[in-house]
Amino acid sequence: MKVTVVKNILDANDRIAAENRSLFDSKGIYVINVMSSPGAGKTSLVERTIQALGSRYRIGVIEGDIQDTFDADRVAALGTPVVQINTGGACHIDANMVREALPGLDLDRMDLLINENVGNLVCPAEFAIGENCKVMLLSVPEGADKPAKYPSMFKESAALVINKIDLMPYVDFDMARAQRAALTINQDLRIFEVSCRTSEGLDAWFQWLGERIDGFKARRVGRAA
Amino acid sequence: MKVTVVKNILDANDRIAAENRSLFDSKGIYVINVMSSPGAGKTSLVERTIQALGSRYRIGVIEGDIQDTFDADRVAALGTPVVQINTGGACHIDANMVREALPGLDLDRMDLLINENVGNLVCPAEFAIGENCKVMLLSVPEGADKPAKYPSMFKESAALVINKIDLMPYVDFDMARAQRAALTINQDLRIFEVSCRTSEGLDAWFQWLGERIDGFKARRVGRAA
Repeated sequence: MKVTVVKNILDANDRIAAENRSLFDSKGIYVINVMSSPGAGKTSLVERTIQALGSRYRIGVIEGDIQDTFDADRVAALGTPVVQINTGGACHIDANMVREALPGLDLDRMDLLINENVGNLVCPAEFAIGENCKVMLLSVPEGADKPAKYPSMFKESAALVINKIDLMPYVDFDMARAQRAALTINQDLRIFEVSCRTSEGLDAWFQWLGERIDGFKARRVGRAA
Repeated sequence: MKVTVVKNILDANDRIAAENRSLFDSKGIYVINVMSSPGAGKTSLVERTIQALGSRYRIGVIEGDIQDTFDADRVAALGTPVVQINTGGACHIDANMVREALPGLDLDRMDLLINENVGNLVCPAEFAIGENCKVMLLSVPEGADKPAKYPSMFKESAALVINKIDLMPYVDFDMARAQRAALTINQDLRIFEVSCRTSEGLDAWFQWLGERIDGFKARRVGRAA
């Protein structure tokens, strides 16, 4: 009975996610869903990505938080259109929350929509929002055992950004073990080692994301021809 | 309707938590529920606490994880009785999971039962398990904005252990801001600044926990007299 209720909620979410997906496709907007533990550096990655790709792509952001507007304020400070979702206690954003946030953005002037999820290494993976791909961060201080302990998010993601590598000298983090564990769960996972603080390693992430956006746009033009 | 279902689940959980509570009381066991983000250092705090208090109190541990037995293995290596709960995807432990784990422990030979929750800064706060108090960890690399962004766990806890202070020189963490925000949410919160890595600050935590256990035992004897 409990399982059925959960299944119905997820089915309803998937339907709305598919509708979001169609809308984004029709507008030519590439959409990513950024997920991680609290404090792994999602907002910092969003900031760096806007700074690096903001001249090439028109970017919009949806910030998901339980309450407050700290992260949205940081993004808005860069001059980027941003809408805040406050989940009111919920530990993830879902497709309906994203749908209700969309009127706050100009979808006719957007190439990339970044959704920053609530900080949580478990629940966000279950809720599609209409994204092209999920991207997750793991930060070095969290430890190399996290992929094996919290596998679902690693399984669902196209890219894993391992952040805060500038802290490697000060913590016990076995990089090889973390990556091996992540690839065991998801052999297609593209992994980046970065520091949003020092900018080390970020260029590879920018290039990967740019290629994904360009590929999406090219396929769309191909279909229209 | 969705809200009603959630309320029924929480009501059922509270009933079982109260039954657990009665059982622990009858056995004279002080029970703590340790919560934090993934990788904040819960298992390290459990290890240090066992090493410091294990000669004074008979300690048992319940380890809650989505899957695997990494943390339980670490605790078992100290010679401490431990039972693993695998939640099978659920992002928290609940009262019924704890109840089902109890036959694996000798409750007649226990003074302190430590429950290590699933790493999650949101959901565990909602599920009582029959504990005397909730204890939460916040690790320095997570950032000082976390109390304001994820208030429920700070509100529910009796103690806040701020871990990984050895990383303070390498990250931007405003200790005063974090503590001010936490105390705004919960003015009774007892705060400890520690490093489980270097052991700095842990003595105050051990002393506080010891006093809580002793006070609980003394009140119990008082009632029986």
